[in-house]
Amino acid sequence: MREDQIVNPWRVKATGSGDKTESLNYIKVIEQFGCQYITKEIVEKLKLCTNIPVHHFITRNIVFAHRDFEKILDMVLKNSGNFYLYTGRGPSSQSMHVGHAIPFLFCKYLQDAFNVPLVIQITDDEKFLWKNLTYENSLFYAKENIKDIIAFGFKPENTFIFTNTGFSHRFIENNLKIGKSVSFREAAKVFGFDENFSISQIEFPAKEISPCFSTSFKDIKFIKENSFCLIPAAIDQDPFFRLARDKANVINGRKPATVYSKFLPDLCGTDGKMSASDQNSAILLSDTKENIKKKIMKYAFSGGRDTLKEHREFGGNLEVDIPYHYLTYFLEDDEKLKKIAHEYSTGAMTSGEIKKICVDVLANFVESYQEKRKLVTDQCVSKFMSFE
Amino acid sequence: MREDQIVNPWRVKATGSGDKTESLNYIKVIEQFGCQYITKEIVEKLKLCTNIPVHHFITRNIVFAHRDFEKILDMVLKNSGNFYLYTGRGPSSQSMHVGHAIPFLFCKYLQDAFNVPLVIQITDDEKFLWKNLTYENSLFYAKENIKDIIAFGFKPENTFIFTNTGFSHRFIENNLKIGKSVSFREAAKVFGFDENFSISQIEFPAKEISPCFSTSFKDIKFIKENSFCLIPAAIDQDPFFRLARDKANVINGRKPATVYSKFLPDLCGTDGKMSASDQNSAILLSDTKENIKKKIMKYAFSGGRDTLKEHREFGGNLEVDIPYHYLTYFLEDDEKLKKIAHEYSTGAMTSGEIKKICVDVLANFVESYQEKRKLVTDQCVSKFMSFE
Repeated sequence: MREDQIVNPWRVKATGSGDKTESLNYIKVIEQFGCQYITKEIVEKLKLCTNIPVHHFITRNIVFAHRDFEKILDMVLKNSGNFYLYTGRGPSSQSMHVGHAIPFLFCKYLQDAFNVPLVIQITDDEKFLWKNLTYENSLFYAKENIKDIIAFGFKPENTFIFTNTGFSHRFIENNLKIGKSVSFREAAKVFGFDENFSISQIEFPAKEISPCFSTSFKDIKFIKENSFCLIPAAIDQDPFFRLARDKANVINGRKPATVYSKFLPDLCGTDGKMSASDQNSAILLSDTKENIKKKIMKYAFSGGRDTLKEHREFGGNLEVDIPYHYLTYFLEDDEKLKKIAHEYSTGAMTSGEIKKICVDVLANFVESYQEKRKLVTDQCVSKFMSFE
Repeated sequence: MREDQIVNPWRVKATGSGDKTESLNYIKVIEQFGCQYITKEIVEKLKLCTNIPVHHFITRNIVFAHRDFEKILDMVLKNSGNFYLYTGRGPSSQSMHVGHAIPFLFCKYLQDAFNVPLVIQITDDEKFLWKNLTYENSLFYAKENIKDIIAFGFKPENTFIFTNTGFSHRFIENNLKIGKSVSFREAAKVFGFDENFSISQIEFPAKEISPCFSTSFKDIKFIKENSFCLIPAAIDQDPFFRLARDKANVINGRKPATVYSKFLPDLCGTDGKMSASDQNSAILLSDTKENIKKKIMKYAFSGGRDTLKEHREFGGNLEVDIPYHYLTYFLEDDEKLKKIAHEYSTGAMTSGEIKKICVDVLANFVESYQEKRKLVTDQCVSKFMSFE
């Protein structure tokens, strides 16, 4: 029997059986989670709110779903309140991959567009609890990942990065109030917990939910009292924020708003999300151009046809072609992308050619990122993490 | 059908149906939990270790059970290591009652006898999670209870008192390691959790277990590295420490040792433990002599006979007589107690007379305690709670 698509914070697969030929069905995800599409009306409002061009993640439907994003935009248009951005990262490996960059690139855009505070939660506790990692390594990965994140260029005077092991006690009041209000039954339903999960895993959702409320950041001066929270995240995190919205009343907080992105697929196909655990299926932010070239040329799933003759006749399949997918994320120039899509889908451009373009675009992105990463010092880390 | 005796950290009843005529069966508790009796041999060893008389709680079998207490005594005799004491208090009400005093009186004796460090955990988080209490009240009760505890006369240079909301992040490493190693299935079995419990209640045991290991107190100078932990507690807390012993390996810690006391019964009978939630069944540490007199004369369950004639003929029943029970806890003079037992059980002493003696002994204890309580200032609290 065919198993259903799985999308939860710890697993993403188009089919339970792991069939690689099936793409993730985002319509189903939206229906299952009950969030909303980002409509043309919302994009128009966003344009009205800001002085910089709308990010291509939105125009290309990569950031595609939301909860109450429109309310935030209305508030901005009416100048009737404040909001802060909240996102996070589970430090499961020393080097982040290009998929991890997506929410941070989008956060950077939002911070620049709205000039708002940003808080970034590093869930070192979560990774220790879920992965076969020592405590020491979880902390080490956290610190390395914080440097990786700082390199995206956030404003130090308006950005706070914290680890759960180092800061979550500062929002213990919200944490306990939320944790008291969620029964095991409810958590099991939302997150798929069963009796094999550890008692600390079961409590973890309270820690990801608490930062949705500005009272968790009384110690952070640039977060104003009673601020709304807007969460840019990949859509698999929605269960946390759906529950956060349900529980806002227990701490007299405002329901957080969210904007969700799709997953950057791994090299092998569009049925899941990129994972750092298989290094041949992920492009790391620490890869050299040579690595990137090897990985894409060798492993990237192609939508090209079996023979050149067939390819020229029928064209490549954009739907499943991984190099094309990556270009939609990382090639900012709309005209160029349109041209490539046309040439590839009509067969004028070969698989090898689109792969080569993809290598250049990704290598360019990663190299320019690495230049900025080199400048991140321990002093920068201290600055972003200070709270007293 | 008759329901079984219930003894767990959140409920103590001789019968599930609440039959008041049945006393708690401690033999059954020991068998169920699998701990050991304190034998005459252990009492002899204790005498060898210390220069002060053995506490009457031990000679009267009130502190009656243990795990590895003998190992601690052997260590002291051989001078082959260090230990610290760990006990706790759940601040569920503003005023503590005389039943709460038992483990602290015994801790005071152990600290004086062995000149060892003592750590006291105030589980303000637990009480917030289990009771219908606001967060603010949990913290307020915690602070009041800390003053109550300080009044027992612990050595400030060798005693550390902490609240879970204020200090538990300092042992987050042990907390996560323990919490990762306990599945919901295991916790459900040990603590009786089911799917109605909140996710924070389910995680709580990790917080009571962590202080069993000296690595949780790296910030506390007077607790030496690699110290053993000895836990004086009421026996209902054994599930926590049984589990702590099972999990010592996950943090390379030493299995904690324990010594357990029986429960001081409430005024109404020997089927349970004193509870502060019914003020007519508990003697509070804040009660006046008049209150105490009224409560004991009016509510204390008597082992006396129905008529004076029968009483003179058959004598009082010491087994169920609450005033006599209280005297075994609070009348230190063995000879006097023996005389009272004899006179009362033979009918020479009436219920009214033994109640009067009980009033005097308890009022004396409480009044002398209150004198010391008055001297506890906010500065004292800061001294006992400082850790940096």
